Formats: sequence, structure tokens, C-alpha cells
Amino acid sequence: MKISLKELKEIYKPKLVPLNWDNERNVLVLLDQSALPFEKMFVETRTPEEVADAIRQMKIRGAPAIGIAGAYGMVTALLNSSTLEEALSSLSRAKATLDRARPTAVNLSWATSRMLNVARNAVENGLVKNVRELVDLMKAEAKKIYDEEYEAELQMGLYGLEKVNDGDTILTQCNAGGLATGTGLGTALAPVKIAHALGMKVSVIAPETRPWLQGSRLTVYELMAEGIPVTLIADTAVGLVMYKGMVNSVMVGADRILADGHVFNKIGTFKEAVIAHELGIPFYVLAPTSTFDLKNSVENVVIEERDPNEVRTVRGVPIAPEGAKVYNPVFDVTPPKYVTAIITEKGIIYPPFDKNVRKVVEKKMSSFLAFRHFH
Amino acid sequence: MKISLKELKEIYKPKLVPLNWDNERNVLVLLDQSALPFEKMFVETRTPEEVADAIRQMKIRGAPAIGIAGAYGMVTALLNSSTLEEALSSLSRAKATLDRARPTAVNLSWATSRMLNVARNAVENGLVKNVRELVDLMKAEAKKIYDEEYEAELQMGLYGLEKVNDGDTILTQCNAGGLATGTGLGTALAPVKIAHALGMKVSVIAPETRPWLQGSRLTVYELMAEGIPVTLIADTAVGLVMYKGMVNSVMVGADRILADGHVFNKIGTFKEAVIAHELGIPFYVLAPTSTFDLKNSVENVVIEERDPNEVRTVRGVPIAPEGAKVYNPVFDVTPPKYVTAIITEKGIIYPPFDKNVRKVVEKKMSSFLAFRHFH
Repeated sequence: MKISLKELKEIYKPKLVPLNWDNERNVLVLLDQSALPFEKMFVETRTPEEVADAIRQMKIRGAPAIGIAGAYGMVTALLNSSTLEEALSSLSRAKATLDRARPTAVNLSWATSRMLNVARNAVENGLVKNVRELVDLMKAEAKKIYDEEYEAELQMGLYGLEKVNDGDTILTQCNAGGLATGTGLGTALAPVKIAHALGMKVSVIAPETRPWLQGSRLTVYELMAEGIPVTLIADTAVGLVMYKGMVNSVMVGADRILADGHVFNKIGTFKEAVIAHELGIPFYVLAPTSTFDLKNSVENVVIEERDPNEVRTVRGVPIAPEGAKVYNPVFDVTPPKYVTAIITEKGIIYPPFDKNVRKVVEKKMSSFLAFRHFH
Repeated sequence: MKISLKELKEIYKPKLVPLNWDNERNVLVLLDQSALPFEKMFVETRTPEEVADAIRQMKIRGAPAIGIAGAYGMVTALLNSSTLEEALSSLSRAKATLDRARPTAVNLSWATSRMLNVARNAVENGLVKNVRELVDLMKAEAKKIYDEEYEAELQMGLYGLEKVNDGDTILTQCNAGGLATGTGLGTALAPVKIAHALGMKVSVIAPETRPWLQGSRLTVYELMAEGIPVTLIADTAVGLVMYKGMVNSVMVGADRILADGHVFNKIGTFKEAVIAHELGIPFYVLAPTSTFDLKNSVENVVIEERDPNEVRTVRGVPIAPEGAKVYNPVFDVTPPKYVTAIITEKGIIYPPFDKNVRKVVEKKMSSFLAFRHFH
């Protein structure tokens, strides 16, 4: 089925958008993801410090989402300035405050830099006459960042739609949805959401995704909110659901994709890829081209390890003996032989990846600038 | 390294035996496995009803373990009888009470039947003169059941030892240890425990095994108690540890093994088998020959599903939205092509399984009667 981006925008409307800029009150309203799905609380942030705190406390998470939040955090930095000079120095301070909230997140500092550069350029070149005009310009720029992200996801979702058939059940991993990207759509979940909006019968199997439970807490919640049938399984059950023929394809996001097609993504992705390959089930990775790392090779990417207590406990409740030794890697790596295709906003990349990745990723496409992927 | 069963019995002594018959006080003392590893509590059971309650409440679990508990539960049924007739009718009632506590557990009714038959035979043939003599006979029979189970595990462990090298790290799944068999040794964990007792440097990687967490709660606890190095991982990390070369072999138990080598075991086993096969890591199944089902084929074995709340919660704490749809299968099935060998108390079975399983399983071996496997 062919559908244009314009038509799609009319047909699909996200139901659960985790951030919303209130333009009248100049407040960034965040859906508190640290409390989901147990409580649906909204947090109002009015200053760069409040936005930074929300990022630190995981009330907003996912790299694209915190990029967008950072952009609006920059807007809030301007609201008490009387002169353009004051405004620029307030923006510099705000950028430092926001960037510190998640130093490893590329998107956050990318977004705050973009906002600061737009402001400096406007002031230096006399494009704005006063703070009010600067505020309007910055609001427009933050909205543009949001819109570009959303457009890239729609485009990726449309490409992914080619891989979805009526009646399909799709196995995913973690939360590569609209809660993570901030737009309400998502990356790996975009094709199934679009398919559902177009009236196709589709459903999702979501593994809980220990230790952080992004699957059970966020993916299940997000899909239920859109009325898309979703079945939660324990991480141990991913093999059986594929063995029993319950899965038509696997769709996951990515944190980093190398030029030869090695995919770094949330721990647990590799096992799905190997089993899918063994059983002849297509395994798709969905990620914007900004997720590609064309410089590193698989040997020199370090897999981050996190606090052992994430494995020893679940939501604060112990599940193992005190002092148990733990290995808690955050990501795993899926070699290219297990990947059927990589779906980006610029098109679908097929093997051999070492030849085809660069062709698609380096394609010029001035109309968007997609973000790095999230977790 | 060759070691006889007799030598081994001197070298290896289990450190954590979950059931103990106090012969002076006529009390069956159980380590409460429902509270492990958070509290180490012992429960004293003095009547068939108390033993049945402990089984129902999962204070004692694992098919071989509840078989042994059932046998001692039959002993407690005799303690208030004054005549042999009274004793026999008390035993019949006790068998009904105990069997009801876990109707699907083959070992439990097998053990209570064996105890009842021994008593009836002794009374009918005048082998005992009074209740005191019957009690002594029954105590000896219960101990024999225990000893046979332990001997089968030692034997299985010795066969498995051939597959363990100094310095090995073994990946397991669930708890196929001495807590489940009642003896303190176990099936899949027997080779590593014996290797450790013989001074070899060995370690274990234990996946948490959601939803019931037998890995994090029991396997980690049991190995820590024996001083064997063990590392806990989330279920999502099984692929990465194999990919990174951290695993020399996989050793798991089994619930049911078919004549053609299909292995039914705790959910999550299949994914380990497929990844091990793909990466060239040996995958061993350890189970007594009583675990084999030589009649059924893979199509007509039903995979039991359990309460969705096991997946929606962890130790009573919710981890998913209320009303989330869940698929909660207890077991999965591993096709024979992924199994390197099956290790039993009668020897090691190699492919082709459809030819070799019967040869080993149907071998006469009057000195033991091992139990069905456990979970």
C-alpha cells in the first residue's frame, strides 16, 4: 500500500505524547515516565533547571525525547530576560545546565547547541529586535526540531509498512516507541502503529525487557493507549513464541549501527535475532540514519555496564541473595548475518551491509535531520 | 579423571540440604524455599496434612524433593496408630491427602504408592509384628528413596564431569540443583559441584529465570552456599555472555525428554540451545532416565500455561499496566538438533537420539530407581 507523508499525517494521530509545550503559559508539560504505568502524572517544567531535573530523574527518557525537552528548556531560559544580551548569556548558562543532566546523550547537547546557534545568529545579524521576537523565533525552532523528528519517524514507519502484512504479529524488544522519541510515534513501533491506523489487523508481542522493564512498563502501556493488541511475555518466552509460529517478524530499534551492519541495541536483542534467523523469521532494525557510526569497528565499541542492583532487585524489591555477583550489560551486539534489513528514514538497507549502508546513510536529504536513537 | 561413586561420596558433601528427617523426634524439617533467599526459615512437619500444606505452599518444591517429602509424610501417618489395621488405613488416607497437594507431580504419587505397597506387603506377609516395627520399616524405605535419588545424581554428575574442564564457566537455566531434588546435589548442577569438590576451578552463570526467578532466588543461593563462583544475569543477557566467549558449555535439566530427543524444560531453555548451537558451544541436558517419555511425540505434548499475574508482577509488585494481556508458558521445547548430548544416571546419550535414547533408557540397572525431573 502506498501512502504519502501528507496523507499519513491526516490518518495517524499519536494518542500518547509524552511532552507538550503549552504556548500560552510557556510551560513544558512532561508525562512522568518514571511512574508509568502505575501512575499517570504530568510534571510542569518552567525553567532550564526544572527540565534538567526531569531528565535526571528519568521523568523524560529516550534520546530523541530529551533532545526535544532540551530545546524547550532553552526557550524557558529566555522568559525573564529584558535585553538580548541578557537573553544570550542566560541561554549559555541554560545549555550548560541541561547538558549536564545526561552527559552521554548526544541528542541533548546537539539540540541545545542548535538552539543557541540560532539565537546567536539572529541577534548578531539583527534578525530579531527584542526578547519577545527572540522568544518567538526560539519557540519556532524547538517546534521545528520536534517536527523533524516526527517526520523522520513517519517516513521510517512508511518504509517499514512495506514489511507488514495484514494479520501480522510483530515481536519487539525494549521500548522503541513514541515515549522514547517524544513524538508519540516511535521507530520500531512506527510501522505497526501506521498499519493499525490504516485499518490493518496487526498485533505486538512485547518482552518485559529486564532489568529496566521498558517492555512491560512502557511498550505495553503505549500500545494499549493506541488500542493496538499487545501481549506481554517474560524475556524467557521469546524463543517459544517464535518456535510456535506466533511471530511474523521481529522489529527492534538500535542504539548504534556500524558501517558493516553490526547492530548495538538493548540487551536481549541478539537472542531474538539469532532465533529469528534460525527459524526463518525476518528480523528488522528500525533507526534513523543518525544512529549509524561509520567510523568504529565492532572491536572498539565498549558495551556499557550498569549498577548490579538493577538485576538484584525489581522496583526496589530484592530478587536475589544479598551480595550476589552480577553482570549487567546494557546493550548487546547483533552481527549483520542475523539482520534481514535496516529501515531508516532515507530508505531500506539490505545486505550486503558493508556495501549498502554508506549508500543510504550518506544520501543527501535536506528536508530532515533525524535524531540518534534512544533507550 | 576417573572417580568411583564410593570415593565421590567421601569427597563431596552437600552443604544445603532442603529436607531432613529427624529420626529421634519423628519430624520432617524443611527449608522453606518460598522464603529463600530472603529468609532462611525451617518448617517442622509432623503429620501428612502438614507435609501436604508445605508442598502446596511451595515451601518444598521440585519433583524429586516432593517425592521424598511425601515418603516421609507417609511415615508420620503411622505414629499415632495402635494396631497394624489402623496403621494401614491411616496410610491410605495419608496417601490421598499428600497426592492432592500437587496432582500433576508424578514423583509424589509414585513415592506414596511405593510406601503404601511396602507397608501392605509387610503386614500381609507377616514381616512386621507391630506398629513399631512397621514404622522402622517405613523409615528405612523413605531413606532408601532418598538414597536412590542421591546416588542417581552422583552417577549423573560423574558422567557430566567428563564434559567439564578446569577453568570452565557453565551457563544454566532455572534451578536444576539440590534444592529441587531434595538431596542438596541436583541434576544440571551436579557436574559443576563435583568438579568444585575435586578442586577444579569452575564457575556458573545463572539467568534469573523469570517469571518465577528460580535462577536468582535459588540457583545463586545454592551455589553461594557451596562456595562455587556464580554470576547472576538478567534473562536478556544470555546471548551476550555466549557471544563474548564467557561460556564454555550450557548445562540444563529437563522436565520431559521424548524418544527422538525433543527436550521439554523450563521456559527460556530453547533460546540458550539455539544460541549455543549457532556459536558452537556444547549444550548438555542432564536428567534421570525416569524423565524420558518414550510414548508421546512432540505434537501431542501440551505446554502448560500459568497465571498471567506471574508475569504482570514480581514478588507481588506490579511491573505492567493493569489488565495487560499476557502469555505465560511454563516450558519450552528444544528440538534434538540443538542438543549436544543428554546425560543420565545410566550414561551419556549422543545423537542420533531417535536411535540412541532407547538403548540407554531401556538398559537394566537394578541398583537405582531415579526420579522424574523437577522444576
